[in-house]
Amino acid sequence: MEYRGQHLLGLEGVPAEELEFLLDTAASFKEISDRDIKKVPTLRGKTVVSLFYEASTRTRASFEIAAKRMSADFISLSSSNSSATKGETLLDTARNLAAMRPDAIILRHSSSGAPHFLAQRVPCAIINAGDGSHEHPTQALLDLLTIRERKRQVGGLTVAIVGDILHSRVARSNLIALRTLGAHVRLVGPPTLVPSEFGRWGEICHDLGQGVRDADVVMMLRIQRERMNGNFFPSLDEYSTYFCLTRAALREAKKDVIILHPGPMNRGIEIASDVADSEAAVILDQVTNGVAVRMAVLYLLVNRSRADVDANTPVEVVHAPPVRQRRRQAAV
Amino acid sequence: MEYRGQHLLGLEGVPAEELEFLLDTAASFKEISDRDIKKVPTLRGKTVVSLFYEASTRTRASFEIAAKRMSADFISLSSSNSSATKGETLLDTARNLAAMRPDAIILRHSSSGAPHFLAQRVPCAIINAGDGSHEHPTQALLDLLTIRERKRQVGGLTVAIVGDILHSRVARSNLIALRTLGAHVRLVGPPTLVPSEFGRWGEICHDLGQGVRDADVVMMLRIQRERMNGNFFPSLDEYSTYFCLTRAALREAKKDVIILHPGPMNRGIEIASDVADSEAAVILDQVTNGVAVRMAVLYLLVNRSRADVDANTPVEVVHAPPVRQRRRQAAV
Amino acid sequence: MEYRGQHLLGLEGVPAEELEFLLDTAASFKEISDRDIKKVPTLRGKTVVSLFYEASTRTRASFEIAAKRMSADFISLSSSNSSATKGETLLDTARNLAAMRPDAIILRHSSSGAPHFLAQRVPCAIINAGDGSHEHPTQALLDLLTIRERKRQVGGLTVAIVGDILHSRVARSNLIALRTLGAHVRLVGPPTLVPSEFGRWGEICHDLGQGVRDADVVMMLRIQRERMNGNFFPSLDEYSTYFCLTRAALREAKKDVIILHPGPMNRGIEIASDVADSEAAVILDQVTNGVAVRMAVLYLLVNRSRADVDANTPVEVVHAPPVRQRRRQAAV
Repeated sequence: MEYRGQHLLGLEGVPAEELEFLLDTAASFKEISDRDIKKVPTLRGKTVVSLFYEASTRTRASFEIAAKRMSADFISLSSSNSSATKGETLLDTARNLAAMRPDAIILRHSSSGAPHFLAQRVPCAIINAGDGSHEHPTQALLDLLTIRERKRQVGGLTVAIVGDILHSRVARSNLIALRTLGAHVRLVGPPTLVPSEFGRWGEICHDLGQGVRDADVVMMLRIQRERMNGNFFPSLDEYSTYFCLTRAALREAKKDVIILHPGPMNRGIEIASDVADSEAAVILDQVTNGVAVRMAVLYLLVNRSRADVDANTPVEVVHAPPVRQRRRQAAV
Repeated sequence: MEYRGQHLLGLEGVPAEELEFLLDTAASFKEISDRDIKKVPTLRGKTVVSLFYEASTRTRASFEIAAKRMSADFISLSSSNSSATKGETLLDTARNLAAMRPDAIILRHSSSGAPHFLAQRVPCAIINAGDGSHEHPTQALLDLLTIRERKRQVGGLTVAIVGDILHSRVARSNLIALRTLGAHVRLVGPPTLVPSEFGRWGEICHDLGQGVRDADVVMMLRIQRERMNGNFFPSLDEYSTYFCLTRAALREAKKDVIILHPGPMNRGIEIASDVADSEAAVILDQVTNGVAVRMAVLYLLVNRSRADVDANTPVEVVHAPPVRQRRRQAAV
Repeated sequence: MEYRGQHLLGLEGVPAEELEFLLDTAASFKEISDRDIKKVPTLRGKTVVSLFYEASTRTRASFEIAAKRMSADFISLSSSNSSATKGETLLDTARNLAAMRPDAIILRHSSSGAPHFLAQRVPCAIINAGDGSHEHPTQALLDLLTIRERKRQVGGLTVAIVGDILHSRVARSNLIALRTLGAHVRLVGPPTLVPSEFGRWGEICHDLGQGVRDADVVMMLRIQRERMNGNFFPSLDEYSTYFCLTRAALREAKKDVIILHPGPMNRGIEIASDVADSEAAVILDQVTNGVAVRMAVLYLLVNRSRADVDANTPVEVVHAPPVRQRRRQAAV
């Protein structure tokens, strides 16, 4: 099996076997981050550029740590110091970066489709780290890996996605992949955030208790206050009254339900603090798995040409001979 | 001897022998930065994250250079692109970073006690790079190392700390450590910045000439204009008239007095330009020693499990065989 | 032959043979970026610091990629998080950085002469990445390398530089170097941006068609809207009407003319979009050559003491023995 794409733009159209292969690869990389020496030489001499037009701690740090643990060179660019502020088009910025011969560009952009646009015009691998309200494939992959670890397999599970489905690229990538892998998906939230058109993607519930009933997995979404300029709900308080995941609401779910959240959490708004810190929450596992998923994605996209290299071989900490001797060697 | 802490949160409670051991370790690392190849493989495969909620050129660069000369991977996060702006708590941010399996988090935060709070809740080493007006331990260690280099030992010296003692975390960490090592400490400044309660920490002087009389060491503090919202003195001019360290004021000190300043300096405000550039000033030595101190701290906290590795062994610059040959080897 | 400077402050006064040597060295580094493993160990253990007081995506990324492909440690500082905001002088900032023992400081500053000022006061190599409207030597070197690749040699070519010559450090560095190498230079733009005093630098033309007539090379400058506070032209529209490089205007040039632009481009203002994307445009070659030029400059300035090392030897991707065995070796 293999992942056949040259890029990772989204999970739409990625067949079940490729998804499972991506997850298997990520699972195999997990133990590298638990080693004493958390580094493999697999992507030594490769250049990975992140180009973020939207702020992010977590996603950028996760990709950076992943790249560095694979020994790639990582160059981080953000919109605040980017040429975008000088009026350059995204295409020109990307072509210019591509001319510096990176092996991958990780793009986060507020416009849906921006990474697809680049992928057709730039010769290196493009990794979508979130485009508008479209897709965020590595987030969905880390969610799936976390679910698979706890539930053995995704097929047959009942997964409730709760919150602002309408604007969430995390929801969208998850919806697609969960259905591909055979999960039963419920979309839970007020009608303004889960419009009836979404009925083709899953079962719609406008009531939290009903939405999480007998769920194996509850996947909370972050309420993005900064996007709430469209009057999608009267107030945070009112949203919270009906859709905050509390212990009471969780009683409807299966006993062994697990709870995911992509972070950063608004404690007390979309998720009660005690629920976020409960045993059912696998939120920090998601973060740990995020590094493994990004190592896998970088490995599969960047290292395409070097299948002979065993990716898990640890990096060697070479202890050099004394300086004088080394000089002599260099002179040979 | 060893440093017994899992973290470096402050110098309060660190016994004299441990301080001396930290300084000895730092001294042993100094020569690495004077080598032609300034790099040792000691922390290869380790992940060091800096999380700075307050701006800083010097401290972050010093830690970054230290980490990279030890071959660690360094990931830099600052509040401007952090999840703090999205309403995430410090604890959630830190737990999330910790889930990416760093070996150390270097924290600078405007709240006193922030690093202690994290240290109790996060499994990796926490290094305090300045918390509110509480402590800044690596700054004090580099000050001590600089003093020890010039004066052989700290015990018995008369050290005048001049300026805004009330708000200075640099002063506080130094006060504590200088007393632990047996120095005689004078706290010099106007009553608003050196209140009488500080009498238990050292001898209080509200007159600069008297304060530096027969001093072996004068440690200037930076006037932090950005903190001066409490009307602690009538004006910078007036402060400067009474407390700027000039050649005239220095005549009271010992002939071989040395002058420290943590930077960035306000020339002409707390220190006269000719004094800052005089032979007595060891301000750039402090900066050089800062890198060594941070190498030592990272080494002692991060490398705990690898005492068998000789930390000073230079990194090897391996010259590979030609590509074709290398491919063959990889395939073996 | 060699490059004799300790710094790269500008191209004024650099003799033709040294320019050619710089270009030859850059040309020899180009193929590294086309390798599967784009990394050489040449600058391993060297510390390169970028200190940018003006925003830049491209130039900083280009230097960072160059440094990392040479295996140097790269530390990036920008004015937004710099001590400048705390009132420190440039000299103190630089002295402090220098005390951390970097091998080179790459400086971008809005004041002409800032890098020269530092070079006289700081012991490490200073590389000018743009100072005010004075010089931007690595940009001119990458332009020259691009011209040389297409035209074999620079001597004897007719080069039209079009746009805001008055404020452009790119124009200035190019003017100087092109003349040193024996090109015939035309300065093209409205009288407000190409004042008659510039006559001693080249032939002045206030008409675009006439300016590019029989040109071998057309070097467009970016209209820097952010600098246009001096009313140098009535409006962008009017500028564009007379000085936008269109296919029609290009008909006057030689058939095999090549077009350069330092980026970021204002499509439709100084250059028509179809011209920017035409075969004659070598704009992306410039970017690719930029990495090679910066590798060469870092190599020549930083590696001065290690002429015995063959700079093009690929980095070795060492595959370590299994962990247990490695541990045993380390313990020996």
